[in-house]
Amino acid sequence: MSKSNKKKLVAEEIENKNYSKAVDNLKKIYNKIILPVEKIYLFEEFHSPPLTNADIVAKPSVLVLGQYSVGKTSFIKYILDREFPGCHIGPEPTTDSFMAITGNKKDRIIPGFAAVVSTDLPFTTLNKFGRAFLNKFKVSQVNSPILDNITFIDTPGVLSGEKQSIGRSYSFPEVVKWFVERADLILLFFDVHKLDISDEFKSVINVLKGHEEKMRVVLNKSDEVNVQHLIRVHGSLMWSLGKILNISEVIRVYICSLCDEELRYKDCEQLLKSEEEHLLNDLRILPTNAIDRKVNEMVKRAKLVKVHGLIISRLREEMPYMKNKESKQRQLINTLPEIFEELQKQYGLAKNDFPDVKEYQKKLNNYKFDEFNKYNKKLFSAIDRILTSEDMKNIMDDFQQGITEISEIKIKSKYLAKL
Amino acid sequence: MSKSNKKKLVAEEIENKNYSKAVDNLKKIYNKIILPVEKIYLFEEFHSPPLTNADIVAKPSVLVLGQYSVGKTSFIKYILDREFPGCHIGPEPTTDSFMAITGNKKDRIIPGFAAVVSTDLPFTTLNKFGRAFLNKFKVSQVNSPILDNITFIDTPGVLSGEKQSIGRSYSFPEVVKWFVERADLILLFFDVHKLDISDEFKSVINVLKGHEEKMRVVLNKSDEVNVQHLIRVHGSLMWSLGKILNISEVIRVYICSLCDEELRYKDCEQLLKSEEEHLLNDLRILPTNAIDRKVNEMVKRAKLVKVHGLIISRLREEMPYMKNKESKQRQLINTLPEIFEELQKQYGLAKNDFPDVKEYQKKLNNYKFDEFNKYNKKLFSAIDRILTSEDMKNIMDDFQQGITEISEIKIKSKYLAKL
Repeated sequence: MSKSNKKKLVAEEIENKNYSKAVDNLKKIYNKIILPVEKIYLFEEFHSPPLTNADIVAKPSVLVLGQYSVGKTSFIKYILDREFPGCHIGPEPTTDSFMAITGNKKDRIIPGFAAVVSTDLPFTTLNKFGRAFLNKFKVSQVNSPILDNITFIDTPGVLSGEKQSIGRSYSFPEVVKWFVERADLILLFFDVHKLDISDEFKSVINVLKGHEEKMRVVLNKSDEVNVQHLIRVHGSLMWSLGKILNISEVIRVYICSLCDEELRYKDCEQLLKSEEEHLLNDLRILPTNAIDRKVNEMVKRAKLVKVHGLIISRLREEMPYMKNKESKQRQLINTLPEIFEELQKQYGLAKNDFPDVKEYQKKLNNYKFDEFNKYNKKLFSAIDRILTSEDMKNIMDDFQQGITEISEIKIKSKYLAKL
Repeated sequence: MSKSNKKKLVAEEIENKNYSKAVDNLKKIYNKIILPVEKIYLFEEFHSPPLTNADIVAKPSVLVLGQYSVGKTSFIKYILDREFPGCHIGPEPTTDSFMAITGNKKDRIIPGFAAVVSTDLPFTTLNKFGRAFLNKFKVSQVNSPILDNITFIDTPGVLSGEKQSIGRSYSFPEVVKWFVERADLILLFFDVHKLDISDEFKSVINVLKGHEEKMRVVLNKSDEVNVQHLIRVHGSLMWSLGKILNISEVIRVYICSLCDEELRYKDCEQLLKSEEEHLLNDLRILPTNAIDRKVNEMVKRAKLVKVHGLIISRLREEMPYMKNKESKQRQLINTLPEIFEELQKQYGLAKNDFPDVKEYQKKLNNYKFDEFNKYNKKLFSAIDRILTSEDMKNIMDDFQQGITEISEIKIKSKYLAKL
């Protein structure tokens, strides 16, 4: 083994060690500190189900969205440098399902129904979208070193007309929303021949609101027109995006040709190459960003769990021992806004750390407050330690010292040949 | 004289004959048919002053707007292929005045105060903007064959900051509005280094609302960046315009280098040339469009004059001979909406042909209705003849048979040399 090869191997071990270590720490923190509080104060019934280990260790995911036949599936094949089970590519709508492309020693397809009951896959909560959706969901497991660190989510083409979407028996934007919230990078694909933004596309773009920082726009097949034409096409796309996206900063559009074929027009070869390099780099550094995001989400969740626990335990403690329980409970629900304010003052919490008071008032009607658990000092101190100590920061720092790029993602030979 | 030269001369005579003939016909129609109705029913006091002959014969005008130093004055010099009195060009704000560049045998500058009292110039109504503006308005008369058929309006650069515009002692957007309404083509200039759209610029773009069909955007100095950069710059401009302009159709941006210097980056030479050709062609065909617009405006005015005359004469006829004049007049003002409806039914007019009823109610308080003139059948029949007969259509047809392009506007030598 050459010296440089050996060096590379060591670097990769460090990387994996750091990635696993960071994720392991997160798992520990969640299961030992946050989850117990969730359980004793019924967090799930007011907010969301507990995170599974699969959710926490889930690899960074790249969600690929766009009209049909703009090259979404081809792009994934291009990056992996191989075909994969379930990949159909063609000029007509070919991908009619949502497909998660993940790494595995052996290639295979897992159908939706099986995928959502596999607790080692991070898709269990997709169950709520029901049969109609699960029939249109698959996991494609593929042997590829790139997929050791990343998961791609391929999607059916966004439809161009209102009428077509009637055929879908599940809510496309709702499902997209589920994936958007969990994605680390969202690629919105257009191609130089398909720039129109349909109503369904608009509703998808609406779902992206608030997630613009992880969104990138790709103008694909840019080699299929000459440079004059490309300037116009890119301009029209910017015009439409400017109208639809409610952000003031100009969005970055990657002008690419993400497929194996030779470039048709070569007058922008240099541009296409440098754009592709930028896009590939966004993919390479995903693991770093992903850990940051996971830590971030975990802190957000810990905060909400704490606030929820404080509310529930306070309500329990306000209850009388013997009589007038019902009237006291009604009174507590009515004065919930004041209770929120008291807690904010007492614990130095911000108003916007608190959930919607009206929703709580509605939900609380279904409970008997004297069955709630009381304030547990030990549990809350533990959560406070995460929120205030250096634990979370250490996880990120640990990780970022490692080599975190996916080195297998490389610029393609069609460019290397000549440049 | 060669045969082809002679042929050209004859063609030009036809052109001029047709242009003058069309304009002469318009003048006749206005002065003989519309103006008398305006006069006897006090149109000016409710709407706008009579058109002067200068207004009617005014050559098609091109309004040039944009930030300072994006090449507005250079563009005019480039088209005329010569310097002109009052043209200062530089990297700092150089044009601090509105300047009308018109044709004349002898070069000279007419200051604003003199220009607005010259009844042979179409600027008399600019008087209303007062001293502060007139100090910043000039007419530059220039000996150029192109200016026989066209007038350019050069403008001070739109300012980039709110603070600067405090220095202006007249309302910039108001003045721009005056020119916008009278322009046949509006060129909105940007350059590749100055894309930001300031608040003043936004207020100017607001003034352009409803005039989008005569507006073109020019991205100037496009040769000063390479093609990669140009794609980005053009894209950002489209993004911003998409946000600001409230039209769904993608606006046309001309990617140009409108000055005498050699191109700096030549990778888009072909594009720049073809864009310039398109822009020049928009200028060449202006006389045709201008006549269409003049006829159109004249028909619009005739319609409004007729409606106004019908209202005033009806009010006169409703007045009693002897007594109760004042109470009757009050009653007529109160029931004005019903009177409008009656007139609409009786004369088959549309509701939106009628002016704002509340404004009329306010203004009518200052008049004695029995001093109004009665319905004059002869005058109204004459107006109806214009509105229904072929007269107006004939004017346009007459004109369009002539050769109407300004043949002197030619692609520049910097392109001819090589292509």
